[in-house]
Amino acid sequence: MEKFRFLTSGESHGKGLTAIIEGIPAGFEIDINEINKDLQRRQSGYGRGGRMQIEKDNVEILSGVRFGKTLGSPVTLFIENKDFKNWEKIMSTKMEDFTEEKSFSKYRPGHADFAGSEKYNQKDLRNILERSSARKTAIEVAVGAVAKQILNKFSISCYSEIIQIGNCADKKDFHSEIDKAKEFGDTLGGKFEVVFSNLPIGLGSFVHWDRKLDGRIAQAIMSIPAVKVVEIGENPLGYKGSEYHDQMFLDNGKIVRKTNHAGGIEGGMTNGENLVIKAVMKPIPTLKKPLNTVDCIKMQETEAHFERSDTCAVEACAVVAEARIACVLANEILLKFGGDNFEEIIRNYQK
Amino acid sequence: MEKFRFLTSGESHGKGLTAIIEGIPAGFEIDINEINKDLQRRQSGYGRGGRMQIEKDNVEILSGVRFGKTLGSPVTLFIENKDFKNWEKIMSTKMEDFTEEKSFSKYRPGHADFAGSEKYNQKDLRNILERSSARKTAIEVAVGAVAKQILNKFSISCYSEIIQIGNCADKKDFHSEIDKAKEFGDTLGGKFEVVFSNLPIGLGSFVHWDRKLDGRIAQAIMSIPAVKVVEIGENPLGYKGSEYHDQMFLDNGKIVRKTNHAGGIEGGMTNGENLVIKAVMKPIPTLKKPLNTVDCIKMQETEAHFERSDTCAVEACAVVAEARIACVLANEILLKFGGDNFEEIIRNYQK
Amino acid sequence: MEKFRFLTSGESHGKGLTAIIEGIPAGFEIDINEINKDLQRRQSGYGRGGRMQIEKDNVEILSGVRFGKTLGSPVTLFIENKDFKNWEKIMSTKMEDFTEEKSFSKYRPGHADFAGSEKYNQKDLRNILERSSARKTAIEVAVGAVAKQILNKFSISCYSEIIQIGNCADKKDFHSEIDKAKEFGDTLGGKFEVVFSNLPIGLGSFVHWDRKLDGRIAQAIMSIPAVKVVEIGENPLGYKGSEYHDQMFLDNGKIVRKTNHAGGIEGGMTNGENLVIKAVMKPIPTLKKPLNTVDCIKMQETEAHFERSDTCAVEACAVVAEARIACVLANEILLKFGGDNFEEIIRNYQK
Amino acid sequence: MEKFRFLTSGESHGKGLTAIIEGIPAGFEIDINEINKDLQRRQSGYGRGGRMQIEKDNVEILSGVRFGKTLGSPVTLFIENKDFKNWEKIMSTKMEDFTEEKSFSKYRPGHADFAGSEKYNQKDLRNILERSSARKTAIEVAVGAVAKQILNKFSISCYSEIIQIGNCADKKDFHSEIDKAKEFGDTLGGKFEVVFSNLPIGLGSFVHWDRKLDGRIAQAIMSIPAVKVVEIGENPLGYKGSEYHDQMFLDNGKIVRKTNHAGGIEGGMTNGENLVIKAVMKPIPTLKKPLNTVDCIKMQETEAHFERSDTCAVEACAVVAEARIACVLANEILLKFGGDNFEEIIRNYQK
Repeated sequence: MEKFRFLTSGESHGKGLTAIIEGIPAGFEIDINEINKDLQRRQSGYGRGGRMQIEKDNVEILSGVRFGKTLGSPVTLFIENKDFKNWEKIMSTKMEDFTEEKSFSKYRPGHADFAGSEKYNQKDLRNILERSSARKTAIEVAVGAVAKQILNKFSISCYSEIIQIGNCADKKDFHSEIDKAKEFGDTLGGKFEVVFSNLPIGLGSFVHWDRKLDGRIAQAIMSIPAVKVVEIGENPLGYKGSEYHDQMFLDNGKIVRKTNHAGGIEGGMTNGENLVIKAVMKPIPTLKKPLNTVDCIKMQETEAHFERSDTCAVEACAVVAEARIACVLANEILLKFGGDNFEEIIRNYQK
Repeated sequence: MEKFRFLTSGESHGKGLTAIIEGIPAGFEIDINEINKDLQRRQSGYGRGGRMQIEKDNVEILSGVRFGKTLGSPVTLFIENKDFKNWEKIMSTKMEDFTEEKSFSKYRPGHADFAGSEKYNQKDLRNILERSSARKTAIEVAVGAVAKQILNKFSISCYSEIIQIGNCADKKDFHSEIDKAKEFGDTLGGKFEVVFSNLPIGLGSFVHWDRKLDGRIAQAIMSIPAVKVVEIGENPLGYKGSEYHDQMFLDNGKIVRKTNHAGGIEGGMTNGENLVIKAVMKPIPTLKKPLNTVDCIKMQETEAHFERSDTCAVEACAVVAEARIACVLANEILLKFGGDNFEEIIRNYQK
Repeated sequence: MEKFRFLTSGESHGKGLTAIIEGIPAGFEIDINEINKDLQRRQSGYGRGGRMQIEKDNVEILSGVRFGKTLGSPVTLFIENKDFKNWEKIMSTKMEDFTEEKSFSKYRPGHADFAGSEKYNQKDLRNILERSSARKTAIEVAVGAVAKQILNKFSISCYSEIIQIGNCADKKDFHSEIDKAKEFGDTLGGKFEVVFSNLPIGLGSFVHWDRKLDGRIAQAIMSIPAVKVVEIGENPLGYKGSEYHDQMFLDNGKIVRKTNHAGGIEGGMTNGENLVIKAVMKPIPTLKKPLNTVDCIKMQETEAHFERSDTCAVEACAVVAEARIACVLANEILLKFGGDNFEEIIRNYQK
Repeated sequence: MEKFRFLTSGESHGKGLTAIIEGIPAGFEIDINEINKDLQRRQSGYGRGGRMQIEKDNVEILSGVRFGKTLGSPVTLFIENKDFKNWEKIMSTKMEDFTEEKSFSKYRPGHADFAGSEKYNQKDLRNILERSSARKTAIEVAVGAVAKQILNKFSISCYSEIIQIGNCADKKDFHSEIDKAKEFGDTLGGKFEVVFSNLPIGLGSFVHWDRKLDGRIAQAIMSIPAVKVVEIGENPLGYKGSEYHDQMFLDNGKIVRKTNHAGGIEGGMTNGENLVIKAVMKPIPTLKKPLNTVDCIKMQETEAHFERSDTCAVEACAVVAEARIACVLANEILLKFGGDNFEEIIRNYQK
């Protein structure tokens, strides 16, 4: 059921991040500047650490596009890790370059370090950190930016906003909340909302569990590093049936609703209202003020490894969430309208 | 990446519900009584309507098992709809039996009726209701019960409990809360928790977004009808980094934690702690006290169609959630330990 | 990329064969008689053994269809094994019915017995035979018959014919060739051709290896029990480039070809010419005149087990091949024309 | 069921070819020289044209490997198109670089040009040629070379050989056969064989059609550009059952066969004998001595476009076939032995 399918790759300090997207029809214009804008948005939230200044991500298209338009063949996106020049030896693919520089063995609680090292049988936890790092979401944002451009052709747009940072639900105090945490070497999570508008009715389906759009979106969001809670629409906790469901009315012969508790999804399908997704991100687990942990080589209690990090990345997380949802929706749109080239798809869409 | 894959089918008042599970290794004993027990649990929660008395679901195994053990071939499960005898003509597959009896055209807000009828071009909303009904979760529970039996061979067990019903978070008042809602013709949702214990470290992975176990579980849970919120572990909202992450200590040379905020998942993998999933179910959208809606044939405002329903199905939802998570985990276990027959798998497991 | 996806199940002497097809849009009329006709064709070829008289397969639709039309929900097909009444105890799913009656331990060369018993750790080879039997192709024919009906809506039709039986390439001598083999307790294979007409241009694709239509068809055909050779179009062995390729001409402004060596596929896509697939089936490996083999329990040389069998099943194999190709093509057609219901799909098709 | 999954991308004259392989366990040593050797083999067959001198393919590993060993994260392979410097403007991804230089509109019979331009709505046939070109098989060879290295850890090896070129089945005359064709501006196909040795018993399965190893291999081979015929083992045409099947004997308590007509596959599974695959490649459809065709813009009869090409590429095709089969087998091996890191897998293997 994947018409828009993709694989991503790349380590945090390796040569770069790559994605191959297979299934984009021919004849779509891809605007590389729009991709780069989302990459900037991902990097520019308040609370990000020093690396954001080094990288300034830019995407390169390696295949699948000619003279600005897709060919129907797989589209390859590449984001160079500009920091790689400082890591060439440490992250070398060659056996002869082996070095223990920058290796570490102190598990960072909340990260993949412990379970990852058990699973993949690694003692140098850098071998886990490098891929489990949220760095990889940069290329997911790039893929999602392509998906968004596809959605735009169908007049579908999106935005996101931060609802809460740490304990603070008042937007004007977000910066000071982050400053305070930074001062104490601590980190903050938060809650955000993503909204997609103008979706056609009937994306997703109830007919089989793995076609339900809410389930697919939940997977996409919960698989973003640090997300622990996903909500579709209004959290129904405490509502009665008579209060929660979005009643239907006629307005000049058109069916309308006065509420959107369902968040745009009924029966696992878009219902024509705005699609509203909320998620809670946990505080970043890399702390200057280190947590108690264990050294996996010495098998002694110690303090966790600290690698350059951010205080708060909720804004970035929201940008990633937009991207991830856009991929799910682009797949549904391409399945719905069929067609192998843009002209054909638009004809089917405009009927 | 699906080693344990399955398709389900069946309408609410059709002949029955079927599932084919492909990928169970040979030599597993399947205990049909254990499947039936979960089917009973699904039906027996307080607040269920009259149909639960009619059905008394029992599963039949149609293939893939001989003398109590799996053959390695696809396992077919079938649950007869005992009510079908009253619906034979209404739900007939034959064109010549066409009847408008029990057809309806008044959208039920909160259900698949509206979006489903648009998507599948149906005016008789029964053609939507029949598959979008939560009835189909019975066969998902049966599939999950098989998955649980696989997990049991690896000493993995699970339970679930209700945390909140409507506005009430006190277990001893759940029944009266439901009685009250029923009296008013209203319905209630609620929150529940599912816990799996004794999972091996390293199920799932961070290496690619669609391998993250939290994402896969979130999809499984959010695709259960009426679920709107999924949480993995403790909701991090308001926690600082220094408070949330589960620090690691040594206890007689063994790594231990004193908290489990992560709910057993770090970096998209099991970390050896209990897997803790919470979800919020919306109140059932079929209300005796009907909601405002629109008739899709007359295109007039009206009151929603009422079809025999429950007041509260949170307990059933928790049983379905156990089943759905069990399927995700069984797949991971089978991938991890390889092997084509039980003896081989257990050898790999015990090393 | 699977919009038309399905799982099948069932043992040769179990209760029956089941298939669940997920992904058929709503509003398709399914003619059950057409399915049964293909089931009869599969059973009626010259050279089939006694079982064909027992079974007289008929399909039952258990879900996904109401009043003759698909609902969009999964379609379940079931074919009862009429012989099951004689096998109830031998093929029981219950542990307490264990019996060694009809068990066997003499590997049949050419069958799955040897590798299957190693893989699934079975000593009673019936546990392998029951699923590896070609009996399971009956339900594949039923699924394919549904796919053919979908294709018919797009004016696509198919037929197959036998090219060679044993050493005989002259149709009028096929029966006597089979009679001769039967007399000697031997079996025959043969070669057949399947042709699909009126396919739209551009099904399949060259953009990624797993989208190539020739590859998908080759998998479908080679996975039919006993098929060892698959050819798309004319076998090119011995042709020069200047001879083989189908040159293009204009005829009243329309592009035409005078040859179809390519068998209707260029670049992994349909090119508007007839799709021509040939396959060679090996002789049935269950022989009255038994082969040398080994007994897996006694570990002694012996003669192979004989279970009621056919002399020649090439006609049946061709019917299965039609079905299997039809499934591949229906998937491509549904992807190409998009849409969730028949009316929408036909609108897209007719533009 | 794909544990070893990958996507490839890249145009013939674009920047390069990329593959992302997801699913390789951690701790495998990848030898880049071995990959490059297969790339050289692909380029060095007798009968290749001038481009082979330009490219001298070398692979670069962009991710997933550190200090010579896999990390468990996706492995990215990249092969630069060294010719790209001459094509930068013609193959530019940027709209402003649009040029008609090297565009063409004369369909080449036997290629994807005609069906591809219809499907993807292109008038410049270069937009089809660039991806449909067999150039893309270079990266498939690289992926397969990684798969082969995985297989080598399990002592599985492979080789291929050419059986026939054009009409010539005598190896010592292959070169002169090719020279003759070249002289006339013609092209030749041929037949080759690939053999894998030391496979464990029971890869693949009969339990569901899409698990059959012969079907999966047939897809892999038939999806190689220009392959029209796939054979598993000995073509059974003309054999009787009593002649074809590989009888089983005991030799010092070990089961042995004296023949391998089955080509190592019974019941869709490896049976412990050598896996033998044959395929026929059609003559290359790009001919110096051009074929009759149609110009898709002028809609006039004309002669086909000629782009630098080879006379015979059967040797290359055999190398690609090795690679493609190796991918199928590596997937099966990884599923069979489970495990997430090499040490664990080898433990399971050595039991």
